Amino acid sequence: MNVYEIRGAFGLDNLVRAERPDPTPGPFQVRVRVKATSLNSRDVMMVEGRYNPRQKLPLVPNSDGAGVVDAVGPGVTRVKPGDRVMTLFAQGWQSGGPTKGVTATTLGGPLDGALSDTMLLHEDGVVLTPAYLTDVEAATLPCAAVTAWSALVTQGHLQAGDTVLLQGTGGVSMFALQIALMHGAHVIITSSREDKLERALKLGAHEGINYTTTPDWEKAARTLTGGVGVDHVVEVGGAGTFERSLKAVRVGGTVSLIGVLSGGGGAVSLLPILMQNLRVQGVFVGHRQSFEALTRAFALHEVHPVVDRVFPFAEARAAFEHLKSGAHFGKVVIQVG
Amino acid sequence: MNVYEIRGAFGLDNLVRAERPDPTPGPFQVRVRVKATSLNSRDVMMVEGRYNPRQKLPLVPNSDGAGVVDAVGPGVTRVKPGDRVMTLFAQGWQSGGPTKGVTATTLGGPLDGALSDTMLLHEDGVVLTPAYLTDVEAATLPCAAVTAWSALVTQGHLQAGDTVLLQGTGGVSMFALQIALMHGAHVIITSSREDKLERALKLGAHEGINYTTTPDWEKAARTLTGGVGVDHVVEVGGAGTFERSLKAVRVGGTVSLIGVLSGGGGAVSLLPILMQNLRVQGVFVGHRQSFEALTRAFALHEVHPVVDRVFPFAEARAAFEHLKSGAHFGKVVIQVG
Amino acid sequence: MNVYEIRGAFGLDNLVRAERPDPTPGPFQVRVRVKATSLNSRDVMMVEGRYNPRQKLPLVPNSDGAGVVDAVGPGVTRVKPGDRVMTLFAQGWQSGGPTKGVTATTLGGPLDGALSDTMLLHEDGVVLTPAYLTDVEAATLPCAAVTAWSALVTQGHLQAGDTVLLQGTGGVSMFALQIALMHGAHVIITSSREDKLERALKLGAHEGINYTTTPDWEKAARTLTGGVGVDHVVEVGGAGTFERSLKAVRVGGTVSLIGVLSGGGGAVSLLPILMQNLRVQGVFVGHRQSFEALTRAFALHEVHPVVDRVFPFAEARAAFEHLKSGAHFGKVVIQVG
Amino acid sequence: MNVYEIRGAFGLDNLVRAERPDPTPGPFQVRVRVKATSLNSRDVMMVEGRYNPRQKLPLVPNSDGAGVVDAVGPGVTRVKPGDRVMTLFAQGWQSGGPTKGVTATTLGGPLDGALSDTMLLHEDGVVLTPAYLTDVEAATLPCAAVTAWSALVTQGHLQAGDTVLLQGTGGVSMFALQIALMHGAHVIITSSREDKLERALKLGAHEGINYTTTPDWEKAARTLTGGVGVDHVVEVGGAGTFERSLKAVRVGGTVSLIGVLSGGGGAVSLLPILMQNLRVQGVFVGHRQSFEALTRAFALHEVHPVVDRVFPFAEARAAFEHLKSGAHFGKVVIQVG
Repeated sequence: MNVYEIRGAFGLDNLVRAERPDPTPGPFQVRVRVKATSLNSRDVMMVEGRYNPRQKLPLVPNSDGAGVVDAVGPGVTRVKPGDRVMTLFAQGWQSGGPTKGVTATTLGGPLDGALSDTMLLHEDGVVLTPAYLTDVEAATLPCAAVTAWSALVTQGHLQAGDTVLLQGTGGVSMFALQIALMHGAHVIITSSREDKLERALKLGAHEGINYTTTPDWEKAARTLTGGVGVDHVVEVGGAGTFERSLKAVRVGGTVSLIGVLSGGGGAVSLLPILMQNLRVQGVFVGHRQSFEALTRAFALHEVHPVVDRVFPFAEARAAFEHLKSGAHFGKVVIQVG
Repeated sequence: MNVYEIRGAFGLDNLVRAERPDPTPGPFQVRVRVKATSLNSRDVMMVEGRYNPRQKLPLVPNSDGAGVVDAVGPGVTRVKPGDRVMTLFAQGWQSGGPTKGVTATTLGGPLDGALSDTMLLHEDGVVLTPAYLTDVEAATLPCAAVTAWSALVTQGHLQAGDTVLLQGTGGVSMFALQIALMHGAHVIITSSREDKLERALKLGAHEGINYTTTPDWEKAARTLTGGVGVDHVVEVGGAGTFERSLKAVRVGGTVSLIGVLSGGGGAVSLLPILMQNLRVQGVFVGHRQSFEALTRAFALHEVHPVVDRVFPFAEARAAFEHLKSGAHFGKVVIQVG
Repeated sequence: MNVYEIRGAFGLDNLVRAERPDPTPGPFQVRVRVKATSLNSRDVMMVEGRYNPRQKLPLVPNSDGAGVVDAVGPGVTRVKPGDRVMTLFAQGWQSGGPTKGVTATTLGGPLDGALSDTMLLHEDGVVLTPAYLTDVEAATLPCAAVTAWSALVTQGHLQAGDTVLLQGTGGVSMFALQIALMHGAHVIITSSREDKLERALKLGAHEGINYTTTPDWEKAARTLTGGVGVDHVVEVGGAGTFERSLKAVRVGGTVSLIGVLSGGGGAVSLLPILMQNLRVQGVFVGHRQSFEALTRAFALHEVHPVVDRVFPFAEARAAFEHLKSGAHFGKVVIQVG
Repeated sequence: MNVYEIRGAFGLDNLVRAERPDPTPGPFQVRVRVKATSLNSRDVMMVEGRYNPRQKLPLVPNSDGAGVVDAVGPGVTRVKPGDRVMTLFAQGWQSGGPTKGVTATTLGGPLDGALSDTMLLHEDGVVLTPAYLTDVEAATLPCAAVTAWSALVTQGHLQAGDTVLLQGTGGVSMFALQIALMHGAHVIITSSREDKLERALKLGAHEGINYTTTPDWEKAARTLTGGVGVDHVVEVGGAGTFERSLKAVRVGGTVSLIGVLSGGGGAVSLLPILMQNLRVQGVFVGHRQSFEALTRAFALHEVHPVVDRVFPFAEARAAFEHLKSGAHFGKVVIQVG
């Protein structure tokens, strides 16, 4: 099998191709021939050693993959050869509350990931791909879409008429937009660029706020909700935007914390959480039941993920560079097989 | 009627006695002859102008009171003269999620409070006192006990076997201790003083951690839970302790943010919220349904609040000074009538 | 003021017009000039003495009304003269769980209802009408739409991709259809008539089952869900269809019990509830917070209620007869003012 | 290995001893040397062919077992040889909502059960026995205790001060008593015998109702709650008592349906479910996360199950006869190894 691995030391320069022996599925395992893998900020940080400096090398990066099962081990009942599947981010998290150890079962670190033409996974670690999606599209779901679903639906109990505020037009925010609209919500989205806002509005967002020209976007959001505040903020920015998010949300509202783009530290006033009876919920992607619920909903509505650009396997590094540049709108994918 | 009011400017020196005309209850209103009022940190901050510098003066402080209804206006059906009642912290919050405007209906600022021998309240703004409680005891419930109940029960869905970590031995923590034990939880409590820890253990806490001798109390808490982390932290300290609380809690656990003792600001790393799928919930005291559920549970178990010391009405200022000193264990009360 | 009242004895023949003195709003009360009132099965049963044989007469029937506030009493802050409002079904249920006594505050019995050109209500007993709705449309919401919302959203936590089964094309089912679609659900609807099924499909239902030609509709529903069963049945038929509903639903699914069309009694096997871990939830219309959430969602999507036919005030009896005939599709309304 | 199996045809007369080859654990499997097994009504019904007439024979009955792991297959990480464990009722239900197929993974039918000195199970199908429990005690938990926990805690969200009504003094009711008390609830229990009521009161029940001398026990229960009704009924009787349960419960209350003692059919009026906004929830035992939460709570409080009588393995049939007689108070156990 052909993989990319981070070898020797962290850094994009150390992301190199390697040959490994083709694996044979053991009991309850399935072998997946990977067709596509998508990139998340986490993957870039992992490669650069910023996500988990203690990660052992070599490591095959990327949590998200889609492909076809071509062999199954003894005891496998959930899938069969020929089934199209997607990877489950945290292989050990099937449903219910997360438990200790779940964070140690994530693909693309600590476990080897999807930047590979072949993966060996437990049958519980894959989810069936709906027929209407291409492999490139399917490869975008495991981390970003499940995160958005967990934030808004599984943990957020979104209902029609709620107002959701989304930050930027990256992968999670675009999925959150589609999921929020699917549930009948009112969506406000922020971006630093007018062209991106326009594309988001075309996708169905109700209002856009340019945070370059309107740095006090939290006040604009309050105004757009008649002074009440939004029901839910999907916070992808980290400490840099967190305080504004706490001010954008209504009394009793929710802020889902999912991203670390602008760093996880910094001075933050916690007072609004208390005084406004807010809920701040961390979202560590999600479990298989959420992924399956998401898949069912997407299939019913034939939702197509927003794919920014597809790179060939040979140009994996360029894909990472492109994600780092921030120029993307939606998901960056690498075609593998 | 006799009241204390903050007059002219903030500060304990400006807390003075005053005479006001005796009120007559209008439609749906009740007149309460106050027998006792208890103090919360919020009341001290309010008097000193640190809670809400824009609060208009004069103001009768204190959110918590207990007394007897002696007159009711037209239309009142929930209580009758002779009924013993307690004040509802946020007069306008009856049940369900908090809505805009609820924070403007709180007693002891912006509305006149319970440091008065008489109050005029809407009938929905009082809760019946259970027979087994004295007025001094009943006066301790409206803010601190309801806050602890909302955190652990209404919002926290505590269940037997859960481990709860409580900080210090102030009013909220002591009520949280009683409520957690009532639900069959395992309680770890922290304090800076051995004698206070011993008293907490006598009240039923399972473990005590002296955070003076064990400054890394969050690690001690993890050790006490076999490395798993606690299920729920009732965070009363603010930014000073918040980061440690995030590390004390298990994957998927909850931190209830209720206090501002050590300030609401400061550099805080939000990363554990995300990586551990935590929930941080602000608790703005609670609604009447929570207060009534609490009252029913307390009555069933004949739970007696931990009263530190009772001051006469004439020595109200000394009561505030005592609370400020931090020497108390449990609630500080002023006998009014 | 002009009203219809059931006078002397139950029965449509005793539904007669009467003149009553125009009321003046007392404290916290509002006077509403009613423009339209809609009919529910409950209203018919009430008039005929089948809903509550002990109801005192005379009674002004109908729970649902819409109109304009033209006078307010002292203390009213939530509305002002000129505001368009709708009636709250259970006047005393504002939010949270229902409490004892709530069922005694319902309009159209035991309290006088909306078949009247004027109503005197507590300000908490009305909800603002969204601007995009006519009074005729608004008059259809208080009972049927709120019931559908409570069943699917407040109590049912519907999410996109869920499959909902609706029975017939009456008022509640048509609102449930709109609400389910708004949340991205998959809707199966049953009817005895092909033309009604076709209209439901045009409104967005995904599948229709004619229960005359397919009496085992529960099996058809299972087949349509790949043998899994539906997630939620909104049961309007009572004992006659309840057993089939229990078989139509998936393991762990929900049946909302809202109607009594075919009688509330009869032999029912409860075994599937237990063996399939089902939830059967009674829905007693709902509280004001649900009504307001519904209103906000409807306004965002500019959902128009399905109005079957509008009768003039003078022909109120004909409206009742029409509802009884079962020929309607959607709501039957009486124009009042 | 030594087992009892139902051979040839249903009926206690066909419950015979048999020798089977000792199994070797495959991947992810554990071999358990069973020390004790307890009986549930379901086991009796299964043996007699009343639970599932289509069950294939031979079948080793009993869902509940406790013992010691003595060998593990490749890949097992959750337990090791020497660990004391209990069986999980539905082997395939780990957490979250139940899914299709879960009911086909239950021990003692369709899968071979615990009336055997040896079992071969997936490592996910066992739960660690807390050290303070004997094997005889541990063997009582898998079905009855987990059912009571799921009803009151996982699905019922019991809180201190709630009133719970329990029916009779069988296995589930005795566990429900212990679990309710652990959560600070108020417990009313019914029985046909004064001596059993007295024992229940000694175990902590607050009130007892003899339903022989007080056949209208639902009215007595309402009276005991000041006319309000109880918050939760754990319904073990089936149709025979279900209607009374619906009348015993408060507006908005819950009835957990767990038993079929008096048959699952019969005429039942569903009207109170609707008019009182009740919730009726079926409880199909529960998942592993519930079992583990229960185990943790029981260990914290060192709760000892109420064991009625222990039979030797050779007298298994006598144990079944004893359970059928209804003379027991608490759980009937068979000592196996």
